[in-house]
Amino acid sequence: MSSSEPTIDIMRHTAAHVMAAAIQQLWPSAKFGVGPTTEKGFYYDVLVDTPLTTEDLTRIEEKMHSIVKAKTLMQREDWAMDKAIVFMAEQHQDFKVELLNLLKTKGSTAVAEETGDTGIAAEGGAVLNSVSFYRLGSFVDLCRGPHVESADKIGVVKLINVAGAYWRGDAKNPQLQRIYAFCFPTKDELAHAIWQHEQAKLRDHRRLGKDLEMFTFCEEIGPGLPLWLPNGTIIREELEFLAKQTEYAAGYQRVSTPQLTKENLFFRSGHLPYYAEDMYAPIKIEEENYYLRPMNCPFHHNVFSVRPRSYREMPMRVAEYGTVYRYEASGALSGLMRTRGFCQNDAHIYCRKNQAEDEFLRVMNMHADYYKMFGIEDFYMRLSLPDLNKLDKYVDEPTEWMDALNIIRSAMQRSGYPYKEAKGEAAFYGPKVDFMIRSVIGNEYAISTNQLDFLATKRFNLGYIGEDGTQHPVYVIHRAPLGSHERFVAFLLEHYAGAFPVWLAPIQARVIPISDRHVEYAEEVRTALTSQSVPLASSVLRVDMDTSNDRMQKKIRQAQLEKIPYMLIVGDREAETQSVSVRLRDGTDLGSLPLAGFIERIVAECRNRKDASAPAQELKAEPA
Amino acid sequence: MSSSEPTIDIMRHTAAHVMAAAIQQLWPSAKFGVGPTTEKGFYYDVLVDTPLTTEDLTRIEEKMHSIVKAKTLMQREDWAMDKAIVFMAEQHQDFKVELLNLLKTKGSTAVAEETGDTGIAAEGGAVLNSVSFYRLGSFVDLCRGPHVESADKIGVVKLINVAGAYWRGDAKNPQLQRIYAFCFPTKDELAHAIWQHEQAKLRDHRRLGKDLEMFTFCEEIGPGLPLWLPNGTIIREELEFLAKQTEYAAGYQRVSTPQLTKENLFFRSGHLPYYAEDMYAPIKIEEENYYLRPMNCPFHHNVFSVRPRSYREMPMRVAEYGTVYRYEASGALSGLMRTRGFCQNDAHIYCRKNQAEDEFLRVMNMHADYYKMFGIEDFYMRLSLPDLNKLDKYVDEPTEWMDALNIIRSAMQRSGYPYKEAKGEAAFYGPKVDFMIRSVIGNEYAISTNQLDFLATKRFNLGYIGEDGTQHPVYVIHRAPLGSHERFVAFLLEHYAGAFPVWLAPIQARVIPISDRHVEYAEEVRTALTSQSVPLASSVLRVDMDTSNDRMQKKIRQAQLEKIPYMLIVGDREAETQSVSVRLRDGTDLGSLPLAGFIERIVAECRNRKDASAPAQELKAEPA
Repeated sequence: MSSSEPTIDIMRHTAAHVMAAAIQQLWPSAKFGVGPTTEKGFYYDVLVDTPLTTEDLTRIEEKMHSIVKAKTLMQREDWAMDKAIVFMAEQHQDFKVELLNLLKTKGSTAVAEETGDTGIAAEGGAVLNSVSFYRLGSFVDLCRGPHVESADKIGVVKLINVAGAYWRGDAKNPQLQRIYAFCFPTKDELAHAIWQHEQAKLRDHRRLGKDLEMFTFCEEIGPGLPLWLPNGTIIREELEFLAKQTEYAAGYQRVSTPQLTKENLFFRSGHLPYYAEDMYAPIKIEEENYYLRPMNCPFHHNVFSVRPRSYREMPMRVAEYGTVYRYEASGALSGLMRTRGFCQNDAHIYCRKNQAEDEFLRVMNMHADYYKMFGIEDFYMRLSLPDLNKLDKYVDEPTEWMDALNIIRSAMQRSGYPYKEAKGEAAFYGPKVDFMIRSVIGNEYAISTNQLDFLATKRFNLGYIGEDGTQHPVYVIHRAPLGSHERFVAFLLEHYAGAFPVWLAPIQARVIPISDRHVEYAEEVRTALTSQSVPLASSVLRVDMDTSNDRMQKKIRQAQLEKIPYMLIVGDREAETQSVSVRLRDGTDLGSLPLAGFIERIVAECRNRKDASAPAQELKAEPA
Repeated sequence: MSSSEPTIDIMRHTAAHVMAAAIQQLWPSAKFGVGPTTEKGFYYDVLVDTPLTTEDLTRIEEKMHSIVKAKTLMQREDWAMDKAIVFMAEQHQDFKVELLNLLKTKGSTAVAEETGDTGIAAEGGAVLNSVSFYRLGSFVDLCRGPHVESADKIGVVKLINVAGAYWRGDAKNPQLQRIYAFCFPTKDELAHAIWQHEQAKLRDHRRLGKDLEMFTFCEEIGPGLPLWLPNGTIIREELEFLAKQTEYAAGYQRVSTPQLTKENLFFRSGHLPYYAEDMYAPIKIEEENYYLRPMNCPFHHNVFSVRPRSYREMPMRVAEYGTVYRYEASGALSGLMRTRGFCQNDAHIYCRKNQAEDEFLRVMNMHADYYKMFGIEDFYMRLSLPDLNKLDKYVDEPTEWMDALNIIRSAMQRSGYPYKEAKGEAAFYGPKVDFMIRSVIGNEYAISTNQLDFLATKRFNLGYIGEDGTQHPVYVIHRAPLGSHERFVAFLLEHYAGAFPVWLAPIQARVIPISDRHVEYAEEVRTALTSQSVPLASSVLRVDMDTSNDRMQKKIRQAQLEKIPYMLIVGDREAETQSVSVRLRDGTDLGSLPLAGFIERIVAECRNRKDASAPAQELKAEPA
């Protein structure tokens, strides 16, 4: 240990020992597997006779507290390998014996690979004759260290849950119990992590997508191929309408192109054979191979080159919410986040070289405008670079590559938005900028990839006729600010916890008559709302009515479960005064509003794509 | 010949002989192939030394007139086969000799099949020992007749054009010249047919689609796979927005489902193996076969059955502009009319049996409302029936089938729209109703297929929980009033001759400044228009500006070529009075209108989807 502050990883290492010591005190015959650190703490795999309960976790925590309180020392000892093996065998620690034999015969790297725990012995791959143990009171454990000097230096710990885990990840081995814990230097950091963890469960887009009837998967159709149900389709279409409006105002033209093509197009683009493993197998039609497209680019290039273009037409911005298909192994699929077919907010901008920087800047600003609208405050750009020292080995035209890079860098600097540079992952046809966004609970997603492409002009012979009457090459910007419907809606489900702002909510208001005799007025309210024209919105207002026989409280609870922004409760008084009694989904009671006033409010919310009220309590980024 | 009026087909038969006689007089060494009747007249294939010109056609017509004027008689003679062959050989009529030998050895059916001409000898398939000839003055031709008695009884004839045609349709044979002619009883009928023919050329959707930059095909992508260019995409999206609005108001819910599926779904639906030849070859993913879908139905069935449904949810109307892929032989492809992938205005209505008739009626009314909006006055429904006497041989459940048929018949009768019944073509899962529409030039298209399906409930286990708490089967209505984007836009291109009503026009108005100093005001006008909010329309107004250096007349001509509804010409006077000088694409000059007044006019046209002015002259259904 150095004299400076211990790193969080070292604290977590020690905390794992403290937990194991506590378990040993409670279950003296417990057998221990491995106990590595994680992103937010650590886990330890143990074998005890009965499944551990939540109460057991509390008991373990209590026992850990007393070890911490006693400031028990953490002491290193170096043992000869054979002595270590005999010791662990006497303790009936079968898994430790197995680990020690692995260390003895294959070295530490093999152990780390097989168990996922790099903390057992120092790296090196060589077979070992001695190992280090750490003693914490009466508990002795195999560990390479380092550790904090005593149990009171481990920060704050919370055991999160317990789950089954096979020894060395192999279902043929015994099943141990894996106890997950969070560990942070301060109580506040721990509280935040716990809140994030609970929110992540509540906001899991797969669960919300099912509960709110947004989308489904169907075994008979196939994994990774979502069916968008009516509620999810409304969100998709509102997003598409937003993109259409935004892009129209920004001078884009929309197109619609086929989802499959003869193979030659993808040979020309360079996707075949280099990208073939991400593509589906070909379909034979009249003796020719056709492929489902994994990208839209070459189709847009064909739109561009349908006739010669003049410099007056530059920049030409070609947009399409385009469906693409990419092969993903079934194990890699995850709800809407990773699918086998998705629909991208795609566009390609064809421009002169001296227009590229301004166009790239406009694209970045469009990203930022969208993110502001969705309350995504935390985002940055990640510029992927090849190794610039070896640029001439990666690409044919290092000068063009550096030009493109400088255009992008300059645009990023002018934008004023934060950015990072990272080596690797640059596309073969030019530098790549990913937009990284964080949801309110801190999860980071790569939502949109943008590229500056100077190779398309050669591969597809794309150019324009300049003022001088001769052909000039174009630069192509690939961009997709809203990513794909699939990934972006998955993100929004998490971000909003399913409680979408009014303009996106599948049902925006529900009219609830207090009794049967108020149904007539309720119907009047519903009609008044649904016959509203909402300027610049994609459709009329989406309002329904609850005429079931359920009790009022149940109707309100149901609307809240469906995360409907407004409940409009109407009875005698509302009918007399042409008003509605307004409740929000978070329980806030806005009291009685004149119907005309409420219409004005909800129309403005849709038109401005911004809710009048603050986000509901449960949606706030931090607990009070 | 009977004593009653000769049928038009007999007149046309004789007219073909009159034309051939005229040709023989002009080119005595001409060799004749076949000369059958057609839907609007007839053609005759001839071999002469030089290609025929338009002037030659006029000369032929003049010679025909003199034969008609002479009232030359048409006389039948029966010849022994061998004598006939010798005669034709002496005349060097090689093709006739070949036909006679074919008749002698294989009989008339073989000749009709190989040449497409059923008029040569009476049907029967038997080999022939004698044949009938018809003599018209000095011209003798092989023909089974019957004919009108003399050349003055052939009605009115117009030679239309001439094109190459291989003898017996085989490119290995000599190429003849095929002369097409129209032939009708009266001059008016002929004039109408010629007008239709000329209009059809002008309105050819493939030509208009190219000239107006609506869509394109790309050899490298593949035949039958259209790329929709920006102008065409606007039409698509306006149609889709219309459908969305209409269907939302009619209680439909929209979904979005994948375009491919594991094969089992189509085995369950019955498409495999019975529909396999219309489907693409399968794609293998992780050892399973996936198919691109030729129909959306089974995907919507899966949306319906995502959870149990209550009787309160019936009817449930599930809509999607769904992309489907069907295999078509490359020879059968035709512009947007017949493609290998298209996007259908699809929906499936799930309802109780006692709701089916009303729902079907609503679907018919929705068709009629759309057609009225597009000025399609000429439409009818065609009900496809199996042979009802043998119903039990065609389908497993004749009673259910008759029930479904009676529901549809009753709905058709209640609708008041015209309908016909036709044997054959009924879908295996129930009776089928096609909507047949005619464009203003009289071409008929099957635009939309509707079905009442009682089998889906069994194959997909679709039902609802009734008031009694038990499961009941649903009826499924398949419907697609606007057909597919591809076919409907092809139809509209022909119907409107590319001059779309304002709400559909890709560019709705073009501002044309008289000189450079009016550009500022022109920009003001454009901005005033494009910043308009158009209630219930899909987007803002689409207005551009012509700031080129061309002369005014050229600018106007250019806008007319692009079929832009409005040209707004602005100069000093317009700038002073905040007005625009308005010209329509048909040349009509509306004079000066206050800018505000023009905005009101164009916004109303978009909102109501109805133009204020009558259709342009060139668009009228009949010549003046």
